Amino acid sequence: MRIDINADVGESYGLYKIGEDNELFQSITSANIACGFHAGDYNVMFSSVKLAAERGVAVGAHPGYQDIQGFGRRNIEMTPSEIYNCVVYQIGALKAFCDVNGISLQHVKPHGALYNKGASDAQTAKAIAEATYDAAPNAILFGLAGSQMLKQAKIAGLKTAAEAFADRCYTEDGYLTPRSNPQSVLTDRHLILEQVKNIVIHKKVRTLSGSWISLNAETICFHGDGENSAAITRFIRAELEKEGISVLSAGDMK
Amino acid sequence: MRIDINADVGESYGLYKIGEDNELFQSITSANIACGFHAGDYNVMFSSVKLAAERGVAVGAHPGYQDIQGFGRRNIEMTPSEIYNCVVYQIGALKAFCDVNGISLQHVKPHGALYNKGASDAQTAKAIAEATYDAAPNAILFGLAGSQMLKQAKIAGLKTAAEAFADRCYTEDGYLTPRSNPQSVLTDRHLILEQVKNIVIHKKVRTLSGSWISLNAETICFHGDGENSAAITRFIRAELEKEGISVLSAGDMK
Amino acid sequence: MRIDINADVGESYGLYKIGEDNELFQSITSANIACGFHAGDYNVMFSSVKLAAERGVAVGAHPGYQDIQGFGRRNIEMTPSEIYNCVVYQIGALKAFCDVNGISLQHVKPHGALYNKGASDAQTAKAIAEATYDAAPNAILFGLAGSQMLKQAKIAGLKTAAEAFADRCYTEDGYLTPRSNPQSVLTDRHLILEQVKNIVIHKKVRTLSGSWISLNAETICFHGDGENSAAITRFIRAELEKEGISVLSAGDMK
Amino acid sequence: MRIDINADVGESYGLYKIGEDNELFQSITSANIACGFHAGDYNVMFSSVKLAAERGVAVGAHPGYQDIQGFGRRNIEMTPSEIYNCVVYQIGALKAFCDVNGISLQHVKPHGALYNKGASDAQTAKAIAEATYDAAPNAILFGLAGSQMLKQAKIAGLKTAAEAFADRCYTEDGYLTPRSNPQSVLTDRHLILEQVKNIVIHKKVRTLSGSWISLNAETICFHGDGENSAAITRFIRAELEKEGISVLSAGDMK
Repeated sequence: MRIDINADVGESYGLYKIGEDNELFQSITSANIACGFHAGDYNVMFSSVKLAAERGVAVGAHPGYQDIQGFGRRNIEMTPSEIYNCVVYQIGALKAFCDVNGISLQHVKPHGALYNKGASDAQTAKAIAEATYDAAPNAILFGLAGSQMLKQAKIAGLKTAAEAFADRCYTEDGYLTPRSNPQSVLTDRHLILEQVKNIVIHKKVRTLSGSWISLNAETICFHGDGENSAAITRFIRAELEKEGISVLSAGDMK
Repeated sequence: MRIDINADVGESYGLYKIGEDNELFQSITSANIACGFHAGDYNVMFSSVKLAAERGVAVGAHPGYQDIQGFGRRNIEMTPSEIYNCVVYQIGALKAFCDVNGISLQHVKPHGALYNKGASDAQTAKAIAEATYDAAPNAILFGLAGSQMLKQAKIAGLKTAAEAFADRCYTEDGYLTPRSNPQSVLTDRHLILEQVKNIVIHKKVRTLSGSWISLNAETICFHGDGENSAAITRFIRAELEKEGISVLSAGDMK
Repeated sequence: MRIDINADVGESYGLYKIGEDNELFQSITSANIACGFHAGDYNVMFSSVKLAAERGVAVGAHPGYQDIQGFGRRNIEMTPSEIYNCVVYQIGALKAFCDVNGISLQHVKPHGALYNKGASDAQTAKAIAEATYDAAPNAILFGLAGSQMLKQAKIAGLKTAAEAFADRCYTEDGYLTPRSNPQSVLTDRHLILEQVKNIVIHKKVRTLSGSWISLNAETICFHGDGENSAAITRFIRAELEKEGISVLSAGDMK
Repeated sequence: MRIDINADVGESYGLYKIGEDNELFQSITSANIACGFHAGDYNVMFSSVKLAAERGVAVGAHPGYQDIQGFGRRNIEMTPSEIYNCVVYQIGALKAFCDVNGISLQHVKPHGALYNKGASDAQTAKAIAEATYDAAPNAILFGLAGSQMLKQAKIAGLKTAAEAFADRCYTEDGYLTPRSNPQSVLTDRHLILEQVKNIVIHKKVRTLSGSWISLNAETICFHGDGENSAAITRFIRAELEKEGISVLSAGDMK
């Protein structure tokens, strides 16, 4: 049994610091690096990719809406072709930092509101998938397990990795409970561990309403911006390894 | 005898239109396409690269300071490593639009204040040259004839094209007269033609003070944002061809 | 019979020029000046307010979503308190330019997507109305005739002016036909004149489906960014005055 | 003997948090609130002004260059009239938040690179002073003791407060040692206390080279973004009060 552990990193901006990237890099196998649209800037991107390369963590582009103030978490009305262009741009920018650091781009994972829109809206998913295929045909697209995103990625000819969330509460439809809901994020490490084990070992997750849904995940997302996020991720990884589960990057599985 | 004709294009932004790109593409052989920092956005980039590809015009990245309001024409204090990162980012973004349109990136030409700083400041020139080499080792770096930019590009291992300006008045040191000087830009097509012929045929240019300096240029820049810029460029190209001068892209000469 | 003629002006940005403000100022009585969020910048604001003051045109703040690339025409998810803050900010900024030019702020008119959201959504309308009342209690709020915006403005204690659009096609519900509809904007000056006369004289307007709805407008908006917009506005104003209709600013009527 | 204690606050941006504003408000008498250009946004401005009002801390506008990524700490080439417009805009925006919170704007203090440029460059200082006078004639302009800023503020007709810095090392000319110098910022609370006491009680300060220069300050700046800044400020204020020095806002002294 094996799983990839990913986290959003490189989300600092100028003087503004967010996340515990340095510590997180000790526990994750795939790094979703912000591309300067919803977070990050060219300096942060350079140092994040460099750090990932040094630590042997696989690198992915993490494109989002162009909205630093909103951290990419609010919808901005865009046509599919605008989304396509916006994703091509960000993948290209991040790929250049992979090039200058001598590594390959492993994956692409949309961020925040774009991730959620791509999960449910076929047109958005198609635009993201085609942008990824055209700009980085060998990249693995990370998308919510069971989502439009994965469906469209496969149609576009991409490799995919179905993603689950360690600390996000699920709706019965398999979507993430919106952050506006106070119960949307788990903070207790034991509850998080339980959810992760259910996902990795039993391929299921308990929803907000208490029911169980099945879930096939190849990569699990840990949030990089929460409190103690690095410590929790380290704890969970160690627990998984105690169970004999191999933690390795999505690219190493394909 | 041969020369490349280049122009800055793709400088529109959202609803804001600037330049006569569609007409210019009939006369130029190399297009410097803004990368969303000083002008342009991902939608403009996509359509500009596509148009260039359709017209057979070679495409270059045109990185500038991140300053839409100032159109990249004002200096922003940045360290060499910040400039390096900023140029890597923009080259990567533009290159992705080349990829999705099935063409190669021919060249890189810094824009505005960054161009001028790179012309005279060795540290800046070195940062731009290394960024270009690391992100696009096969790209030709366009720089002011006789400048630090070209010197550092050669040290970095890049192909280069020495550039002259069709309508900009030169100082005795071979720099461009600052735009703040009312005589900095030629607008009469016959004066522009005379300057271009002097540069291409006689390899010299008259300076603001009336003296002559020698100038070896492989590419000539026509401004895309002036009045009648497309008509002037078409006129000059036709006149050059009447003189038996071949107009072809820098990449086709190398 | 009397009417106010307003137009969106001050929408240039840095080197990017849009609109025929100088000509428009000869025909309009109220100027909606962009506040640097969806268009305009501090330099454009200064010169626009100064020009309005010199020409005796009444000045209003024209707040929009913070989105130069989208020109304020696309929705951005914001809570009512964020909208409140965003409108307070923009009114304050514009008011300062009124102060330094020695004039009063006559009115506030939301822009684009914010205008449309405020027309139909009570929470948004309430946030805009309260922001206006708190930041500029004497300002007249311009809102779509029959809209939530006007209703909430009255509840907040503001003076209001019901607005109609000279060249926008109406739905049967009295909203504006979305710009995505190719018939949403009238361009023939005679059709525009006919619509304006119907609104001003007969207090009704023909909808897209051909039916008539009644409409009570105190101010009519002419678009500043269309082709020949200044010429059309001048033409319509002259025609209205031939009919004996007084064209004067909303503030002069109250 | 009396002194005003000021600090830069309201410098968070969207999800990005910086500074210990809540704690700082217990020790400072004047708050310099970022205006959304170098830091802060409309939401942060609202809550910062509200918090200051509740705590009885006097509020000032803290205008800077429009550069969130650079935190207003790098020079951007601007003409005096552009600086004038940029400062008018920011003062207006902040003043609106004072209006909606029912308080007056006490002062204006330029930020970072704009502060430093205004300290030594007469044209910049004049532009800032005139913008302040025109937009907020009753505001007190805070400027470096002995600077062009204060000189031009007096010429413009403004009240002024000469400012000293608790933790910044001085050059022999009375300017701040640039942040690029590793010794530019004092971090030991006892060294800071010593510098503050020298300034407040003895009206002098020791420079980087060890010499003493005289300094007449009416307000002392404590940095809000350093480590333990709130604790250090509280400590120093308590020590000053033990010495019988009254700590009260600049406006209360005038």
